[in-house]
Amino acid sequence: MAQTDSSLASPKQIHIAVIGTGGVGSCFMLQLEYLYKQMCKRPSSPKLSLLLVARSSKIVYDQSYNGLPFEDITSRLENSDQTVLKLPEIVDYLTAAPSKSILVDNTSSQEVADFYPRFLEKGINVVTPNKKGFSSSMKLWEDIFLAASRSGAQVYHESSVGAGLPIISTLKDLVETGDEIIKIEGVFSGTMSFLFNSFAPVNGSGGKWSTEVTNAKNFGFTEPDPRDDLNGLDVARKLTILARLVGLPIQSPTSFPVQSLIPRELENVTDGNKFLQELPRFDAEMEQVKVAAENEGKVVRYVGSITVATNEIKVGLQNFDRSHPIAMLKGSDNIISFYTKRYGNSPLIVQGAGAGGDVTAMGVSGDLIKVIKSLC
Amino acid sequence: MAQTDSSLASPKQIHIAVIGTGGVGSCFMLQLEYLYKQMCKRPSSPKLSLLLVARSSKIVYDQSYNGLPFEDITSRLENSDQTVLKLPEIVDYLTAAPSKSILVDNTSSQEVADFYPRFLEKGINVVTPNKKGFSSSMKLWEDIFLAASRSGAQVYHESSVGAGLPIISTLKDLVETGDEIIKIEGVFSGTMSFLFNSFAPVNGSGGKWSTEVTNAKNFGFTEPDPRDDLNGLDVARKLTILARLVGLPIQSPTSFPVQSLIPRELENVTDGNKFLQELPRFDAEMEQVKVAAENEGKVVRYVGSITVATNEIKVGLQNFDRSHPIAMLKGSDNIISFYTKRYGNSPLIVQGAGAGGDVTAMGVSGDLIKVIKSLC
Repeated sequence: MAQTDSSLASPKQIHIAVIGTGGVGSCFMLQLEYLYKQMCKRPSSPKLSLLLVARSSKIVYDQSYNGLPFEDITSRLENSDQTVLKLPEIVDYLTAAPSKSILVDNTSSQEVADFYPRFLEKGINVVTPNKKGFSSSMKLWEDIFLAASRSGAQVYHESSVGAGLPIISTLKDLVETGDEIIKIEGVFSGTMSFLFNSFAPVNGSGGKWSTEVTNAKNFGFTEPDPRDDLNGLDVARKLTILARLVGLPIQSPTSFPVQSLIPRELENVTDGNKFLQELPRFDAEMEQVKVAAENEGKVVRYVGSITVATNEIKVGLQNFDRSHPIAMLKGSDNIISFYTKRYGNSPLIVQGAGAGGDVTAMGVSGDLIKVIKSLC
Repeated sequence: MAQTDSSLASPKQIHIAVIGTGGVGSCFMLQLEYLYKQMCKRPSSPKLSLLLVARSSKIVYDQSYNGLPFEDITSRLENSDQTVLKLPEIVDYLTAAPSKSILVDNTSSQEVADFYPRFLEKGINVVTPNKKGFSSSMKLWEDIFLAASRSGAQVYHESSVGAGLPIISTLKDLVETGDEIIKIEGVFSGTMSFLFNSFAPVNGSGGKWSTEVTNAKNFGFTEPDPRDDLNGLDVARKLTILARLVGLPIQSPTSFPVQSLIPRELENVTDGNKFLQELPRFDAEMEQVKVAAENEGKVVRYVGSITVATNEIKVGLQNFDRSHPIAMLKGSDNIISFYTKRYGNSPLIVQGAGAGGDVTAMGVSGDLIKVIKSLC
């Protein structure tokens, strides 16, 4: 089989190109080096060859396709004077590679995601935590999977929902084996999880809303401008991905109701710091929300849900009994519950850190291993 | 790629042989038929060909390798007068198949599991929920994976732990991407889960131990002889599998301490009914265990854990705070927590039904899809 089919004496080569070396990208590079070393130990494993590493304004790549050494790759990228390749040039470069290649997109760039169909139609496999390709227009989603099915190239994006947690693989298994998805519900944002677990804890009273948002920012749990978390778009994108995997034709992440936690008056203030300065004026509103939940014996949480039968997607505040798994979440954990016909009243639940460089990179590395295995 | 590599005009054929048509096997056959129909809809998909279905004393198979129709397969098996093939004959039959084949073992037979190396060394892939191959002697485990690595055949056994829950795939992803497993802890038995959630509920006082065991048996949550659950061996087998996947060289499921809940005096009574009649004599002992936990403000549960650094595996009773996820489990759910270096103090948790024909078969079907994809 794998070993005897090969007509070459040398082990199979698989080329890797990586775009993006930020928080996730830098963790991924370490995991890739680990994988490379593990595979070198097994003579029957394919040989990984790192062809290209790029970030917005820098690139290092091997024009002769021999592969780059892993050592000091980051500093060699920073010191590189190679002319940056545009995306069509990267497509051409990988298309001309002497064996199969995998593009790892560790950016959150719409521009890169828009190019996935071009990579895939050339037989270049794509692995990414970037939500944009799968949660923007329905046309891009269709183009991606049509290109993949035509060329046989593969596209994996486990970390686009819940970072390294097995969310997308689990949903695909449920759907492909013929289970009927009834409802998916959960806390999909590490930032929102942290904010509400602190603001409205199951035990104790929590702090003021603006204080908790400021704390979350200071702990590094929010985007540089916290409004990029509070607008709910990140959660809406994740639900768009899951709903499409179930088969619902969701046109865009703005085609269903998403409750923004940005007061209308603060939508247009110039920056995140100014926003945080003004936010205390609205603490009373959020306090009302908290107290209303408490009066029902509940706590408020920011959740997303997909009800398949009615094609209904909701993102926003909801009250939960204090003993509900969503209420009892800790820290910045995500929790996702799959209610299905087979699992009945007792959903299949996956819970754990849903953000962070290492765990997000782990989802990418796990996908990469799946593609590598399938190419052997 | 997949489509263009093929030198034949017709779609690739993949042969399936199924042994075992009991609770899991009968659910699996329905899911297999669903997969078959889905794949027929996609012209680029491989063609599944059902070659053989067998149970202990019956077999139906197609000597000319054209494949059996799915319709009424169960009644055709029951009415078949084909001479039952012995395992070496099934190996030979599948080895002579004109294209790649997958053996699905839906039995819990040690005899079939002992033959996995013979199937695998002939390039026949193996998919199974049967724990025996992976939790018996270390030699069998090694023979299985050595045979697989030599021939390139694959072996998947997701449902051997937690039924269809993504436990084994998650652990493999963690290990293969270089995370460090610190501890695995959980409730691994649907029977034990149901028993303790009823006997020592978080709210209320629960029933007598012997009453709860009798109820569990009447609800179909135990083996015909409840001692086969209460001896803890089922949980020990699951922990053996997980520990070996982490890299611990566990010789057998009896090479670490396992707390049996069968009173010594009742170990040798003739059958399960006699056992249940005698069990009330020991209610006071279990009541003491429950009260001792309550006096600490806790509840007692039957759990398993693997602590990697100390190579320590434990199976037995343990007390948990009432707000602990293990304490709050409902019904017959399993819960498995992975404590790892990357996930820190907040483990990756998977929870849900860990037993039942449909969800166990789902794990088998999910594995089957993975093998099929890799053969394309």
